Amino acid sequence: MTDVARVAGVSLKTVSRVVNGVATVDQELAERVHAASAELGFRANFAASALRSGSSTATIGLLIKDLSNEFYANIASAVAVVAKAHHTQLITAHSGENAEDELEAIFDLCRRRVDGLLIVPTGGDHSALKSEIDLGIPMVFIDRKPVGLAADSVVLDNFAGARDAATRLINDGHSRIGILVDTLNMATMRDRLQGVRTAFAEAGLALDDSLVVTNVRGPIEASIEVDRLLASSAPPTAFFCGNNRSGIGVLRSLWQRGTNEALVSFDDFQLSELMPRPFTVVRYDNRALGTISAELLFRRINREVFDPTTVVLPTELCDRGITGLRGPQPQASQRARCT
Amino acid sequence: MTDVARVAGVSLKTVSRVVNGVATVDQELAERVHAASAELGFRANFAASALRSGSSTATIGLLIKDLSNEFYANIASAVAVVAKAHHTQLITAHSGENAEDELEAIFDLCRRRVDGLLIVPTGGDHSALKSEIDLGIPMVFIDRKPVGLAADSVVLDNFAGARDAATRLINDGHSRIGILVDTLNMATMRDRLQGVRTAFAEAGLALDDSLVVTNVRGPIEASIEVDRLLASSAPPTAFFCGNNRSGIGVLRSLWQRGTNEALVSFDDFQLSELMPRPFTVVRYDNRALGTISAELLFRRINREVFDPTTVVLPTELCDRGITGLRGPQPQASQRARCT
Repeated sequence: MTDVARVAGVSLKTVSRVVNGVATVDQELAERVHAASAELGFRANFAASALRSGSSTATIGLLIKDLSNEFYANIASAVAVVAKAHHTQLITAHSGENAEDELEAIFDLCRRRVDGLLIVPTGGDHSALKSEIDLGIPMVFIDRKPVGLAADSVVLDNFAGARDAATRLINDGHSRIGILVDTLNMATMRDRLQGVRTAFAEAGLALDDSLVVTNVRGPIEASIEVDRLLASSAPPTAFFCGNNRSGIGVLRSLWQRGTNEALVSFDDFQLSELMPRPFTVVRYDNRALGTISAELLFRRINREVFDPTTVVLPTELCDRGITGLRGPQPQASQRARCT
Repeated sequence: MTDVARVAGVSLKTVSRVVNGVATVDQELAERVHAASAELGFRANFAASALRSGSSTATIGLLIKDLSNEFYANIASAVAVVAKAHHTQLITAHSGENAEDELEAIFDLCRRRVDGLLIVPTGGDHSALKSEIDLGIPMVFIDRKPVGLAADSVVLDNFAGARDAATRLINDGHSRIGILVDTLNMATMRDRLQGVRTAFAEAGLALDDSLVVTNVRGPIEASIEVDRLLASSAPPTAFFCGNNRSGIGVLRSLWQRGTNEALVSFDDFQLSELMPRPFTVVRYDNRALGTISAELLFRRINREVFDPTTVVLPTELCDRGITGLRGPQPQASQRARCT
């Protein structure tokens, strides 16, 4: 940088400000710095300065799965707000489909010298990350606890949310409920299924395992399962969906069929209140998953000492969709309109 | 790494595989490597190796605004797929609210030694980036062309899309159309407004400027404008919205009012086909903005030489929402159902 300053005929401070993109630098001075930089092939390099100083990089990393799902996008958006408030750059990396890709992506972020990591894990074992935490990169896990590792996490009360959902359907008179969940490799799905089973047990009802469908990946798969289950000799009169993707698929199917099966789905989604038939969501503060996790991470980065902690966010049932538009309507003992 | 291998009593290759998170490493060997790493305070460091070799980092950066808007989230998701196919890590950074924050975030990504950058610009001047491109970091701009800089970009045909939309409304008999657009600091909004103006001119109609509202930021602001315009002495009989956020606000207002004003909005959105009243979107391949940009960037990274190029993606009108549910319905000369 000293060479750039000399060639450009400006102060070192001016070079630094130009390199850091400070907009208040005089335009002519900035151009001289750019010209000198190009002449000298100079490029400011965070890596070099971080290696020299061993200091904070004012950067945190977020490892996340699929941004095209608004559940993940809302988490990322909320984390970005907290990072900005802490004058910290956020870099987001995308985990792959499997546990091996995920670990690789986490180690990659660590090598980029972030001050801390937020991870939405897809599954698999996280014990290999202990050495990174010991070396001073704190990690907070979002939506799912780490496996084989003591670290902070912020999760939903999946069990209670699912139990409430199933209890609501049972109270509305349903005993045959189609249960559509994603892979049971995810603790979230196991906890949600267990919540449903508990609601049935508490009501003294048997859950027909032929109505429990696992590995439902998306809306299309969910629609196919609706058709299959409703074509059976003892069809369900209601559905429980383990996430927004299958919920959307079931909702679309039921609307197209024009029938009155009830539906409760985990995860609220954009414009759910304008869906053309009533249903219920297991709602929670989606952005808070990101906000609280990021705040926990900054406490760790600031060397605050406390035991590994798990924050559990509550859920609530909210009725969505428009009632009375067409055909028979699901019956409900009560309606809970939330915002 | 040699020291870690010695202390752990394993080969250098095993250390490398553990550090890189390869899951097929024997668990006991991996634990020995982790213990030795912790003992020696060793952390693999991309920065160090990049400085040594000056070689590719197999990383690209994406600068994007607000992931909670599905338009941006879909771009990011599509870019992630292309990056993965090129065995390249994607890191996403979040631009701030203004041009200064944006430049700062871009320079920050450059300092992290990415092989190339994808940028969804928010506005402002990009000439300060020329030195980075000259130093070998290619950049492709998404959705909006760079200002003051010759670089590749992938954009929508905003002018034609808006002209088609307004022409459709005019052909359906509307001459008083409320025009709701975001800030005209964005070229996309200027082009869309110009498309509307051209459609009016082509039809020999005057566009009442009192019906043109700029700086409409989101759904709530759009709803307020609907109420204001419809309460005027010469209210519009149709609305054109410059993006999905205002489109959603207008749609919700019109549904709640139960009136039959027509609506065409730029940007399709999730579940638009299940909205409880008919409307039309200016649709395009949202993910292609990310896919084509990323493919262009990899051509640049692979040293392919070609003039700065602008790819313009076409738009089409698609009718959305459910017809005939309640109240008076908008009249339409034709319906164009798309997938």
